[in-house]
Amino acid sequence: MKRTPVIVIAPDSFKGSLNAYDAADAMKSGVLRAVPHAEVRLCPMADGGEGTLDALLSVGGSKMIRSIRGASGVSRPTMLGILPNGQGVVEVAKIVGITDALAMSSPVQDRTTAGVGEAILELLDHGCSQVYVALGGSSTNDGGFGMLASLGVRFLDKNGVAVLPAPSMLAHVNRVDATGLDPRLKHTSLIAMSDVDSPLAGPEGATFIFGPQKGVRPEEAAGLDASVLRVATLLETNMGRNVAAANGAGAAGGLGFAIQVLGGRSLSGAATVAGLLDLDRTLENACLVLTGEGKSDEQTLQGKAPFWIARQAAQKNIPAILISGAVDRTALEQLNHHFAACFSIAPGPIRLEDAIEGAVTLLANQSEQVARVFFVRH
Amino acid sequence: MKRTPVIVIAPDSFKGSLNAYDAADAMKSGVLRAVPHAEVRLCPMADGGEGTLDALLSVGGSKMIRSIRGASGVSRPTMLGILPNGQGVVEVAKIVGITDALAMSSPVQDRTTAGVGEAILELLDHGCSQVYVALGGSSTNDGGFGMLASLGVRFLDKNGVAVLPAPSMLAHVNRVDATGLDPRLKHTSLIAMSDVDSPLAGPEGATFIFGPQKGVRPEEAAGLDASVLRVATLLETNMGRNVAAANGAGAAGGLGFAIQVLGGRSLSGAATVAGLLDLDRTLENACLVLTGEGKSDEQTLQGKAPFWIARQAAQKNIPAILISGAVDRTALEQLNHHFAACFSIAPGPIRLEDAIEGAVTLLANQSEQVARVFFVRH
Repeated sequence: MKRTPVIVIAPDSFKGSLNAYDAADAMKSGVLRAVPHAEVRLCPMADGGEGTLDALLSVGGSKMIRSIRGASGVSRPTMLGILPNGQGVVEVAKIVGITDALAMSSPVQDRTTAGVGEAILELLDHGCSQVYVALGGSSTNDGGFGMLASLGVRFLDKNGVAVLPAPSMLAHVNRVDATGLDPRLKHTSLIAMSDVDSPLAGPEGATFIFGPQKGVRPEEAAGLDASVLRVATLLETNMGRNVAAANGAGAAGGLGFAIQVLGGRSLSGAATVAGLLDLDRTLENACLVLTGEGKSDEQTLQGKAPFWIARQAAQKNIPAILISGAVDRTALEQLNHHFAACFSIAPGPIRLEDAIEGAVTLLANQSEQVARVFFVRH
Repeated sequence: MKRTPVIVIAPDSFKGSLNAYDAADAMKSGVLRAVPHAEVRLCPMADGGEGTLDALLSVGGSKMIRSIRGASGVSRPTMLGILPNGQGVVEVAKIVGITDALAMSSPVQDRTTAGVGEAILELLDHGCSQVYVALGGSSTNDGGFGMLASLGVRFLDKNGVAVLPAPSMLAHVNRVDATGLDPRLKHTSLIAMSDVDSPLAGPEGATFIFGPQKGVRPEEAAGLDASVLRVATLLETNMGRNVAAANGAGAAGGLGFAIQVLGGRSLSGAATVAGLLDLDRTLENACLVLTGEGKSDEQTLQGKAPFWIARQAAQKNIPAILISGAVDRTALEQLNHHFAACFSIAPGPIRLEDAIEGAVTLLANQSEQVARVFFVRH
C-alpha cells in the first residue's frame, strides 16, 4: 500500500436521521481514523426523493428562493436549484412534500401540484433549457394536472370556464385546451427523476398504490382513479401523446404522467443523480466505495442510490461496501450479489430511537471498523 | 491469494445464547460462505468460567461422570474431565454453579464447596497428577474450606469435634488440623483457573465484591468477611503458607485461597485454556483469527478469552477480529488497540431477546461479511 488509497464515500440519506451529506461526513471521519493517509472523496447521493436538491448542489451550483404554492395552495418561499451547467432542478418534496403538515391537514382531493408548474416557470424565466424534477415524497394525487395548469393548459368545465384541476374538481372537467401552454416548453427538456415504475392508473397505478399513504380512503380510490384517468385521456388526445401506461407515469401522484405528456422523459432518480454528480469521474482510481442508507432490503436493489453506486463501482472493479442503519437479513444474500459486504451501524441490541440519536457516532465507528478490515496488512 | 487461506475461529461462549463450540460453528459456516476454499480451524475458548470443561474437551480427552455434592449438599451426577494427556479438569460452575436453582434456593451461609474436594479426589483416584480447577461462576463464599474438608483438613470446634465449615458454622471453628490431608496431594499439581485478581478478604475481597450477587446481604458482609479471614489465618498458620492476600485468593468465594494454601497455583483462565488447547500451534500459518463473546467492553481487556486470542495472534502478526453480541462503544477505542476491528452481530435496531434468539444466523452472517471484506480483491 505505497500509493495514497482513494476512498469514495457515497451514501444516500439515512431517512429520519441523517441527510446524505452528514452521513458522508460521519463515514469520512471514521475512515480517516482507520486510514489517516487516505484521499477521501465525498459524493452524497439521492434517488430523486427528499434531499435530491441538496445532494445535487453539494458539488456546486446555486440556490434560488422563490414564492411558490404548496399543495394546499398557500405560497411560501421555496428553494429551487441551478446546477453549475445552468440546468434547473425542482424537488417536488420541497413544494408539495408529504412531510408538510399544512398540506397534509387539507384533504388529498384539494391538494394540487400547481406549485410545481410555478417552479418550472421560474426556472424558464431564469433561462434554464433543461429542468430536472425530483418526484419522490409528494403528498398529491392530482395526475400532475395542477402543474399543467400553471404551465398554461386549461381545464374547462361544460360552460368553458377554467377550473383548478384538483381531484375534487375533476368531475367538472369537460375539455382541455393546451394552446396556452408556455411556448418555451417546446425548447425545454423536462426530466422526471423517480424510483417508481408504476403506470398512472389501475390497480398498480398512483391512486391504488400510493394513494392510501397520502390519505385516499379505500372507498374513494376507484372513483378518484377513474376521474384522473378520464382527464388524462382528454390530455393525451389533445396533446397527441399516449403516456398514461408508461413506466413512471404514476410517480408523484401522476406528475410522472404530466411531465411525459409534455414530451419529457422519466429517468431513474439515483442513476440521474449519479450522472449529474459525475460519479464516474469521482470513482477514478478509487480502491473502495462506501455507501449506505437508512434501511437496506430488497427495495434497495430496485434502483435505490446504493444500488447504483454498486453498479457503477462494479463497472470499474471497485468493491462497494454497504453500511446502513439496518440490513434486512432476509435480503442479505441478494444484497451480497451487488455489494462486497453489508453492515449495520448497530453496536448491539439497541432501540431505533437510540440508533437514530447516535447515528453520527455509530456510522463513523462502523465505517472505521470496515476500513480497518479492508486495509489490514495481509 | 494463491495458497489456501487458513482462518482460526476462537470465540468464547456468547453468554445466555451460545456455547463456545456453537458460536465457533456458526462463525465457520459464515466464513465458508465467503471463502469456500479456506481452511478453517475451530478453537472454542473459555476463560475458566462456565463452559471451560466443554472447551477443553473439544479437542479430545474424555468425560467422567461421578456423584458429587452440590453447593446445597445434595449429591448428583456431575461431569469431570480427563485431558488427552491424562490431566484432570474440574469446572466449579458444574458443581456449585450460580445458575443452579437448588443451590441458590439455600442461604449462601449454608452453601459449601465440599463437592469440589470430592471431584478432586475422584480425579486423584483416576490417577491424575495435575488437576485444573476452573473457578468461574460459583455460588459459594465459604473460603474454599468445604473443599479442604473433603480433602482431609479437619475444622474443629472447642470440643475437638469436626464441623462442616460452611459460613454459618465458621464461628464454631476453634482449630484446624491438616494432618489428615490426602497424601496424594503432595505429588499433585493443582491449578486454579480464574480471571479474578481479588485477595481473599477485605474491601476488594471475595465477600464484599462477589458476595452480593450470591446473596450476601450488606449487613452481614463484614461479619462473614471477618469469619472467613479468621479461619483462613488458622489454615495459613497450620499449613505454613500465607496466601490470603495473593492474587486470585478471592476467586470463587475463596476457592482460590484454598487451592493456593494447598500449594497450588492461580493462573489466568483464558491463558491456561489457550495453552491447553495449543492455540499457538493452531495459529500457525493462519492469516486471520476471528474471536468473539456475548458482550465486549473494557472488561474484555482484563483477561477475557478474546483478549488472550488477540495477544497470541499479535505475537504472530495475525490480525484478530472481534465479532460479539454487542460492542460497548465507549470501549471501542481501547479495543481497537488490540483487535484489528470490532463488530457486533446486530443487523440493525433489535431487542436483546431477538438477538439471542437469532444468534446463530446473525453471527454466521456477520462472520461472512467480515470475511468478505478481508478477502476482497484489492
